[in-house]
Amino acid sequence: MSDLIQKLQWRYAAKKLNPAKVVPPEKINRILEAIRLTASSSGLQPYQVFVVTNPELLEKIKAVAWNQGQVADGSHLLVFAAWDNYTAERINMMFDLTNEVRNLKNEGWENYRQSLLNTYPQRDAEVNYQHAARQAYIGLGSALIAAAYEEVDSTPMEGFSPEAVDEILGLKTLGLRSVILLPLGYREEDKDWLVNLKKIRRSHDAFVTEMQ
Amino acid sequence: MSDLIQKLQWRYAAKKLNPAKVVPPEKINRILEAIRLTASSSGLQPYQVFVVTNPELLEKIKAVAWNQGQVADGSHLLVFAAWDNYTAERINMMFDLTNEVRNLKNEGWENYRQSLLNTYPQRDAEVNYQHAARQAYIGLGSALIAAAYEEVDSTPMEGFSPEAVDEILGLKTLGLRSVILLPLGYREEDKDWLVNLKKIRRSHDAFVTEMQ
Repeated sequence: MSDLIQKLQWRYAAKKLNPAKVVPPEKINRILEAIRLTASSSGLQPYQVFVVTNPELLEKIKAVAWNQGQVADGSHLLVFAAWDNYTAERINMMFDLTNEVRNLKNEGWENYRQSLLNTYPQRDAEVNYQHAARQAYIGLGSALIAAAYEEVDSTPMEGFSPEAVDEILGLKTLGLRSVILLPLGYREEDKDWLVNLKKIRRSHDAFVTEMQ
Repeated sequence: MSDLIQKLQWRYAAKKLNPAKVVPPEKINRILEAIRLTASSSGLQPYQVFVVTNPELLEKIKAVAWNQGQVADGSHLLVFAAWDNYTAERINMMFDLTNEVRNLKNEGWENYRQSLLNTYPQRDAEVNYQHAARQAYIGLGSALIAAAYEEVDSTPMEGFSPEAVDEILGLKTLGLRSVILLPLGYREEDKDWLVNLKKIRRSHDAFVTEMQ
């Protein structure tokens, strides 16, 4: 078993976080860096990560997230917010950044830019948002492992009103829609009913199918 | 910088994998274990991971994936296939497994089972599939990091015909729909145009918004 697998067995969706414990900034930054570095479709990174530490905002978000305590008990709340649409401006931004950083212009790459420009912005905004939201879930999957690696607890949450969170954080005018919440903090073991219960997963043989 | 971040900087979506190099089974198993252990909504794990090593199947899948070479040049191809719907049977399977493993029956847990049974199976199958597919993307995000940790190359691919892959792998009768492909292997540096180009990501300040 690798260190990483050990840490993944240690992780669980903490039901009670200790409001007195703060995740150090260097750990938060490494978790954010893991999200920033992970893959996304065509490299567009079609989402933004909000790091909410403001107590008033946390309480407001908690109120529209079924009052789940972790939202405000964690020291940091990550909110993954996907692009509400793929626009020419957003697509060009990433292709221009690529040309700038690599300091080259490549015909194949420019053709690829055109193919995206000729398809994505013409599609229904909802289709584009759904595609962008999936990419945010790659970021979430990366964040979960990165947090476990840092021995930081994290509890992914879909149970909230996205419209209300969009309103609280002013996401609509930014062209963003909240997708998922990820409180970060430290488990409060003596108040968490889940901490000592066994992790439940389908067995390897039930979850994986080999086609040799 | 942590070891993990270093490995994430090392990773990229390899454009050419070396067909002569095979990822050792223990590494494949740890990558699969990282997927199996990661989080999913309500813990339902609403997807299945196919590990395809059969050369004929790999060639057939490559042909419906824009002939991208990595599909057949990698030693293993992971196919993430989401549940096509949430059924009472599938929901009960995970809740029953939980009761069996933990050897307890809990009223709150049984109420939660009922709330899922009263909502998910009644929804449109497409809504349920889309929700399940997002969970597969958490698995993908976890797999990408786990592969990098093992110093195994991985190239996530959305560019394929899901219907054709479903047909090739016989997924429809299993109630599954292919969501994403992930070839695993080792980069062939002298034949990969991307390997020496800089990784492109929005800066931390552009990607992350702090709300203090």
